[in-house]
Amino acid sequence: MTFTILVAPSGFKESLSVDDVTRAISKGVRSALPAARVLEAPMVDGGEGFTQALVNATGGRLHEATVTGPVGAPVSSFFGIMGGPGPRTAVLEMAAAAGLSLVPKTMRDPGRTTSYGVGELILRALDQGVDRILVGCGDSGINDGGAGMAQALGARLLDCAGEEIGLGGYELSRLSHIDTSGLDPRLAQVTIDVAVNWHNVLLGPKGVARVFGPQKGASPEQVDALEAGLARYASVIRAQTGLDLAHANGSGASGGLGTGLVAFAGATLHPRFDVVMQYLRFDEMLAEADLVITAEGSLDGQSPYGKVPCEVARRARERGIQTIALAGTLGKGVRETLDNGIDAFASIIKRPCSLDEAIHKGEKLLRRAAEDAMRMMIVGMRL
Amino acid sequence: MTFTILVAPSGFKESLSVDDVTRAISKGVRSALPAARVLEAPMVDGGEGFTQALVNATGGRLHEATVTGPVGAPVSSFFGIMGGPGPRTAVLEMAAAAGLSLVPKTMRDPGRTTSYGVGELILRALDQGVDRILVGCGDSGINDGGAGMAQALGARLLDCAGEEIGLGGYELSRLSHIDTSGLDPRLAQVTIDVAVNWHNVLLGPKGVARVFGPQKGASPEQVDALEAGLARYASVIRAQTGLDLAHANGSGASGGLGTGLVAFAGATLHPRFDVVMQYLRFDEMLAEADLVITAEGSLDGQSPYGKVPCEVARRARERGIQTIALAGTLGKGVRETLDNGIDAFASIIKRPCSLDEAIHKGEKLLRRAAEDAMRMMIVGMRL
Repeated sequence: MTFTILVAPSGFKESLSVDDVTRAISKGVRSALPAARVLEAPMVDGGEGFTQALVNATGGRLHEATVTGPVGAPVSSFFGIMGGPGPRTAVLEMAAAAGLSLVPKTMRDPGRTTSYGVGELILRALDQGVDRILVGCGDSGINDGGAGMAQALGARLLDCAGEEIGLGGYELSRLSHIDTSGLDPRLAQVTIDVAVNWHNVLLGPKGVARVFGPQKGASPEQVDALEAGLARYASVIRAQTGLDLAHANGSGASGGLGTGLVAFAGATLHPRFDVVMQYLRFDEMLAEADLVITAEGSLDGQSPYGKVPCEVARRARERGIQTIALAGTLGKGVRETLDNGIDAFASIIKRPCSLDEAIHKGEKLLRRAAEDAMRMMIVGMRL
Repeated sequence: MTFTILVAPSGFKESLSVDDVTRAISKGVRSALPAARVLEAPMVDGGEGFTQALVNATGGRLHEATVTGPVGAPVSSFFGIMGGPGPRTAVLEMAAAAGLSLVPKTMRDPGRTTSYGVGELILRALDQGVDRILVGCGDSGINDGGAGMAQALGARLLDCAGEEIGLGGYELSRLSHIDTSGLDPRLAQVTIDVAVNWHNVLLGPKGVARVFGPQKGASPEQVDALEAGLARYASVIRAQTGLDLAHANGSGASGGLGTGLVAFAGATLHPRFDVVMQYLRFDEMLAEADLVITAEGSLDGQSPYGKVPCEVARRARERGIQTIALAGTLGKGVRETLDNGIDAFASIIKRPCSLDEAIHKGEKLLRRAAEDAMRMMIVGMRL
């Protein structure tokens, strides 16, 4: 009987794309187990790589688009048209228009960055005549609740004098009324689904400003200002639409973009891995697998909370399939992953070395680590 | 049936003693496999740790002794009296009297260091009334061919004027005659066995001066001077005793100490692992093992040439038992170990880090690495 291994890793942030990671692991596996059948399911969350992964998985294609970046300057962006059956669907990741990696380090003030480009990407997708748009959230560099996106789609965000407010989260404190009459009418004709981290909410101590503001460069005072702006924004939305999104699941996704998408684009939010795994046909491949190998840049105590390795591993364990995880760093709390589906893990690091060296040699290290892990596993198989 | 694992590692140079390494691995194994039976065979070559290991293995005891160190200053040293059946046997390692670690870094000129203290250790052992002395070679800081040892034992090394030459390898160029009449007569009453690296020879391109002189701090000119001194020494020995030791197996062990031991103490040289494994009852334990775990600070392309992991692994493979190796560094050529008995290997390093950090946390890293390797192996056992 052929031994089938499903390779379902994440990309390694700032080092290797998920396709690079997948390929490296597959090569390593084949070195140690030439007769094994290797299935590949490069995994993504809703952030960077989402579009490419879903386009690849469905045999679709990418379209380039220049949009307004998070700090106002134009950026080269893209969206995809998925292949396969079903409604004609565009796929885009918000990070391609308003991601943290598009914000120069010297300009990391999430009160001034905007999701405007996400709205422009949606318009470009509408220009393609799609029936449905799938938006991935994650890796954002903004905190404007999707207000910029709404403006790009045709909404007018007005202050108490009836003047349009500017872009960015700080401006939301001045919001008085939202005029949605100019919203692109095509929005009403399409289904918009959004892949979000289900645990992210808009406001409060676990809200997007307090949890993610500091990661995006906000000082404590700036976090307070961001929270105040989003609170005002949520309050105006509730008053005008009846939608109370402040603590809804996913409302805080990508700097609150989840809220804007629901309020202005009629979108439906979904737990991101439910969406991703459906398109990547993960369950189908899992059903054929005898073993799963996953990977992420760091495996640690945070991994059980919505990161690829444990999401993959939990699904595998439900079917009684074991999962091996490879990581650049085995960090604090890594043993908690053993209670969350992971059966064994290994670092790709082979000797004392710098982070730069590890990143530089990442692909080779990963390939070798996969091979070495398989050899260790084979020792057990032979016993 | 109980699953039995034999833990047979080397120490990690400049980091962990072999007992520390053995204990750490055993703990890690038990974390992952609480029901396993763990046998421990801390491995040594003839160098540092040889005495302690053989004393431990036979239930003997250590004796302290102050002797002349390699640079002439007194050093605290030791030898052991082994327990168990058979002739009353003393055990000593030359490194305890003339090891490289006893040579201050500022004084690393192997032409000036002496094996004199080794002779003194042998005399202290003779004082104990033993029937046999077992000498371990390895980790030496000298290059005097054992001339200093011979002087301590009572030989007079004379120049052409009949004056005694000084200590150290450079002096040997002036050697004209050796007066052995004053050698301690007790030497004739004991058996002296020596554990050596069988590949080390006294003279020539693969001789001790050329191969090890630079590692001990010799410049190219100094290497030439050392080679010349040893050549003279071998020539005088041949002329007086008829023994041609220049290219004999083990004659180059420990800066040529092997030659001196044969020529002046009537010693017999043995491949070091044959000796070590006999006393550590390695084969007995191996016969009960289902799996072997070995370890060394570095596993690399040199490992197949007389290092503990491959010596252990080859013996295991002969019996059809698999061997896993753990190492601080998986170095260049590590895959060659797969052709030399090792079935799988893993580094103890879990993330990018400095050598200092790895050494500082060595014991914990090793314990975790053993546990992690077992988990990887267990994945295979369950398949």
